[in-house]
This record gives sequence, C-alpha cells and structure tokens, in this order.
Amino acid sequence: MELDLSQPAAGLTAQLVDVESVSGSERPLADAIARALAALPFLSVHRDGNAIVARTSFGRAERVALAGHIDTVPVAGNLPSHVDGGLLYGCGSCDMKSGVAVQLKLAAQLTSAARDVTYVFYDCEEVEAERNGLLRLSRARPDLLAADFAVLLEPTGAVVEGGCQGTLRADIIARGERAHSARSWLGRNAIHDAGGILDVLRGYRARQPVVDGLRYHEGLNAVWISGGVAGNVIPDECRVSVNFRFAPDWRAEHAAEHVREVFAGWEVEVTDSAAGARPGLGEPAAAAFVAAIGGQPRAKLGWTDVARFDALGIPAVNYGPGDPQLAHTRNENVPVDQVAECEERMLGWLRGAA
Amino acid sequence: MELDLSQPAAGLTAQLVDVESVSGSERPLADAIARALAALPFLSVHRDGNAIVARTSFGRAERVALAGHIDTVPVAGNLPSHVDGGLLYGCGSCDMKSGVAVQLKLAAQLTSAARDVTYVFYDCEEVEAERNGLLRLSRARPDLLAADFAVLLEPTGAVVEGGCQGTLRADIIARGERAHSARSWLGRNAIHDAGGILDVLRGYRARQPVVDGLRYHEGLNAVWISGGVAGNVIPDECRVSVNFRFAPDWRAEHAAEHVREVFAGWEVEVTDSAAGARPGLGEPAAAAFVAAIGGQPRAKLGWTDVARFDALGIPAVNYGPGDPQLAHTRNENVPVDQVAECEERMLGWLRGAA
Repeated sequence: MELDLSQPAAGLTAQLVDVESVSGSERPLADAIARALAALPFLSVHRDGNAIVARTSFGRAERVALAGHIDTVPVAGNLPSHVDGGLLYGCGSCDMKSGVAVQLKLAAQLTSAARDVTYVFYDCEEVEAERNGLLRLSRARPDLLAADFAVLLEPTGAVVEGGCQGTLRADIIARGERAHSARSWLGRNAIHDAGGILDVLRGYRARQPVVDGLRYHEGLNAVWISGGVAGNVIPDECRVSVNFRFAPDWRAEHAAEHVREVFAGWEVEVTDSAAGARPGLGEPAAAAFVAAIGGQPRAKLGWTDVARFDALGIPAVNYGPGDPQLAHTRNENVPVDQVAECEERMLGWLRGAA
Repeated sequence: MELDLSQPAAGLTAQLVDVESVSGSERPLADAIARALAALPFLSVHRDGNAIVARTSFGRAERVALAGHIDTVPVAGNLPSHVDGGLLYGCGSCDMKSGVAVQLKLAAQLTSAARDVTYVFYDCEEVEAERNGLLRLSRARPDLLAADFAVLLEPTGAVVEGGCQGTLRADIIARGERAHSARSWLGRNAIHDAGGILDVLRGYRARQPVVDGLRYHEGLNAVWISGGVAGNVIPDECRVSVNFRFAPDWRAEHAAEHVREVFAGWEVEVTDSAAGARPGLGEPAAAAFVAAIGGQPRAKLGWTDVARFDALGIPAVNYGPGDPQLAHTRNENVPVDQVAECEERMLGWLRGAA
C-alpha cells in the first residue's frame, strides 16, 4: 500500500484510516509513512521502531516540530472509512489520522519554508505511558526532537490550545479499628472517618490561574473510593483516590506538596504524576504561529503529549482538525473542510516570514 | 465411633471435637449422636438430613427446647483436642461442641424432669443461611420444634444472654454525572456527594432501648463503600453499604422504614434483613430459667439462631460455656469447669419445680 500525498488532505486521511493501526500494530502504517517520506529528497528520515522523524535542512534560524501519533484505540466496527454530509467517519479519523494527514501534506509540499521543520510520527500514544513512542524518542534521541516550538496536531476543533495542565493521582487513606458490627462502638469506622476527606474535597476551591496569557482551570476530585472488610465488620481502612489537575505554572513536585497540605492529617500516597506544559505563547515562534492561524487561543485542560516537549524545554501547543469530544467514540469523525483548513493555515504559517 | 455419654461433659466435648464436622461434612458426627440418642428409651428421635430432634414425653405442661449446631468452621491445624491448664483446646471446643456435650449429658440423665425437653442438634450453622439446619427444620417440621421456651447453647461465657438484635443491610446510593476529570465542573462527583451519606452516619445517634428488662445497643454503620469509573473520570455513582443492628422491639419492616427515613433524599436499596428476638424474660419458663441459672442476664447484641425460635413464636435465650470472642479462632478453647457448671445449672433448672 502506497500513500498518495498528492491527493487532498481529507482523501489522504481516509487512506490512513483504512490502514488499521491499533496501538502495538502500527508497523504497516509506519512502513507506508516511512516509504512516502523517503521519496521526498529534501527530508532526512530517521526511524525508531514504529516512530519516524523527518527533518528539513533549509538552513533557517528557527526550527519547529509538528508531531502526531499514528496509533488508534481498538476498532469499534467503524472501518473502513466513509464520507457522509461533509464528515469523514472511521476509527482514528478524528484522533488523529486527520492531523497526521496534515503533517504529511505539509511534508510533501514544503520544499522550502521560512522555518526548518521536524515532522514526528509516533506509536503507542493510546496505551500506557511507558510504551509511548514520543517518550521513547525523547529519551533515546532528544537531538532529533530539538526545536524552538512544537505543534501537536491532536484534535482541537482547529483552535489553538496552549500547553496543558498537569495531572497527579494520590490515595488519601483513613484508618480505623476493626470490630464486629454488632458492637460497633468497640471499633472506629474508617469509612465514616473518610467523610472528613470528602468534606475537604467538597470544600476545595480550585485555582483558575492565567499562565502566559491563557486561563487554566484546576480541579481536585475523588475518582475512586473503596473500603470494607465484610458485611459484619467495622472497616479499618478506607481509600479515596484523588486526581488533581493542575495548571502549568506548578511543577509536579509543587502539586504533590499542595495535595499533602490540603489533606494534612491524613495519610497521603502519591501514586503517579505528570507535569503539564506552559503554552509559551510569548515566544516569537509561538506568537507567529498564533498570528498565522488566527482565532483566540485557549488553554488546554487535558494532559497531552505537549508536556513531553515542555520537558525538553520546547514550548508547545495543540492544534488540529476534529472535535476532541468525539475521540475514542464509535461515531468518531472529522469535518472534511476542517482538515483542509488546518493544512492551509499551517502552510501559510510555515511559508510566511519568520 | 460410639459416644460415651456417661463420662464428664468435658470428656464428651473432647470426643465430639475429635470427630471432624466442618459444615457440610457433619454425617459421621450426626450418625454418632443419633445412635447415642436412640439408645435412650425415654426419647423419641427424629432425623432430618444431618439434623436430629429428640423429645421426651414426660407429660409435663411445659416444654422447653435446647438447641445447638454440630458443625464447625474449617479446621485450622487445631485437631485433635488437648487439655492444658484447665482449658480444652480444639476446633469447635468453644463454638459449640461443649454446648452440644451439655445437651447430650442432659438427654442421658433426665429420665424424668419438671419440664418436657426437646433436644435439637442441627447442621450448617456456620455457612449461608439457606443451608441452616434449624431454618430447614423450622420450615419443614415446626411441630417438632414447638416449645414454650428455648435455650440456644452458643458460647456466652455461661451468662444468660437474652434474645438478639436484628440485622439489616442496605445500599445507600449517591448519583452524579460523568465528565472528564480535566473538566470536572462539567460533571457532578457522586463520591463527593456521598460525603452527605457519611455525614448522616457520623451524626447518627444509636438507640439503647430496654426490652423485656434488658438494655440493647443499636448501631448504624458503613461496612462497604465503592465508587469510581476510571482514573480520569468524574464518577457518576457511589454506593455505601450500611449494616443496621436493631433492638428486638423493632421488626425488620420497621428497621427498613427507619433506614429509609434516615437517608431520605438518597436512593436506598435494602439488600437483606433478619429480625432479632425478644428475650421474653417475663415468660414463666424464662423467669424460672434465669432464676435457676443465676447471675445477671444481659442482652445479646449479635444476631443468633434464637431469632429462628422467635419467628416461631418461642422466646429464646443464649446460654452456653466458652468465650464467644474465641469462636472461629485457631486458639479456640473452653474452660473445663465451665462445661460442668453449665451442665449442672441446667440439670437443676430442668429437674426443679415448674
């Protein structure tokens, strides 16, 4: 199967969608992308497993990275693709083969540009972080990813979404003392005590800080609760798992410290955390991007792989075709016009003055 | 194996303990008990599976029932029995083969008495209620169990414990609305809302009513809590399972109504309930029993099979050798002297004036 990079972006999206690439099974699609890129003489192409990095060498002062994952969640009876009423349907159409199609269209057309460009295609974004191809590249070949600014072409409805919030998970634990429930006053009920933890959550006032000009919106929420020993036993432990989504002006360490302070007096076990990413819209490359794309940028609230660029010191934004609410749904689709619009605006930005 | 009913009650206890009879495997012990009772000409013996009912026909105006289960929890490396420092150790020594030994000693000795006696030996008390031999008998042959008063020889430390409290389980459910935890304000967190359920539990004032002269002590407690969908989802359901232990002046229906009132505004699902039993210590048979045994009766707080007698309209108390706290422990034991004491006091009661 050979990709036809000369067709319109929506047609290319359909071609990409029809090559099934559930996480872990990206090889046929990665092979096709690598072959298509290898045919473009102005790109140097590097491959790392099922990730591919293609770089221009226009000799510009500024380099930008455009990144997208080529894997999808499991197919849900939504292949092959089809178009209906201006919408292209199919597994991965929105998340995010339309973004990948835009990358490929740009790669094929930009024989020269105001900025050097690094195109990053990577695997295993839809599964556990340790398998993520962008993480693997950022550890093994950070030199390949080096750039002044990065755009992750995840679906944003074609609106620039700057940076992303961080995420932290912690277990807050109430401890009590077991007793037979027929003589409950001989014990101490840990589930009842956990009411204090829920009180803290119910009374919590989330910050909405402005970072680099974008307003974020934090949240501290219970996502799991569990406790209980038997139907006739006063339970001696109750565990509340909380998820703290924090704005990118805080590092993960600060977020952990904050959660420990909020639950002072309780046992707190931080189970995992990932810092967010500052939008960096004040940087010249980012400002030029926003000006070229137009519209009013907004803060990205969900955690995305832009944080991996931030960890490498590269400001990054999210921008791509498709409604993010449709990601992972059986009904996933992308407006044909929006794919073309994204391609056109990014072409304008990359061709324009630095 | 033939039981020797002429030996002291503690020796007979040891013999019973050494015939393993984990719930469902009572046959060898039931056979031995049936053979021993069949040898006593003044008893008519009925068998139902591994349950045995033996009745005197002294022609007295009053009939009392003495009941005990012959099964044990699984053996925990605590067989065969042994005596050390006046204590008889072994699986079932406390719960409740010492009580069964007292029943058998009484059956062998009481060739005549002031009261007719029905001795009930039953299976499967230590497992799910549906398999309980006393429940089976009470459904199939309530005529065999008919009595004016009943004593269940479960371990009480040789103190009369009157009646028992009822028990009811219900799920109290908080409902919310799912959302991505990165945009938590778009949903409604059911776990946070369940804080209101825990508030009710923390503020609950349990009754301590006096029923037939005994003070009971109720309790309303969470025994399980669960909620959560995924680590990044605002949960839309949280379920708190509560166990309500209620005094025997309330029927199960009243207890259910009370729980619904306490949690008005929440969804309440009553999952199971069992009424308690009034101690009935005002009844002449019971009063005579208490007078003969001596000591200060107290309320039984845990649910026991006396409730099955109550359901048949028979007031019942718990009275037997052994510390109930040791039941189901590997270290289970019974004081040798206490077995003899229970036998002696019950002999005095049954032989005494009506």
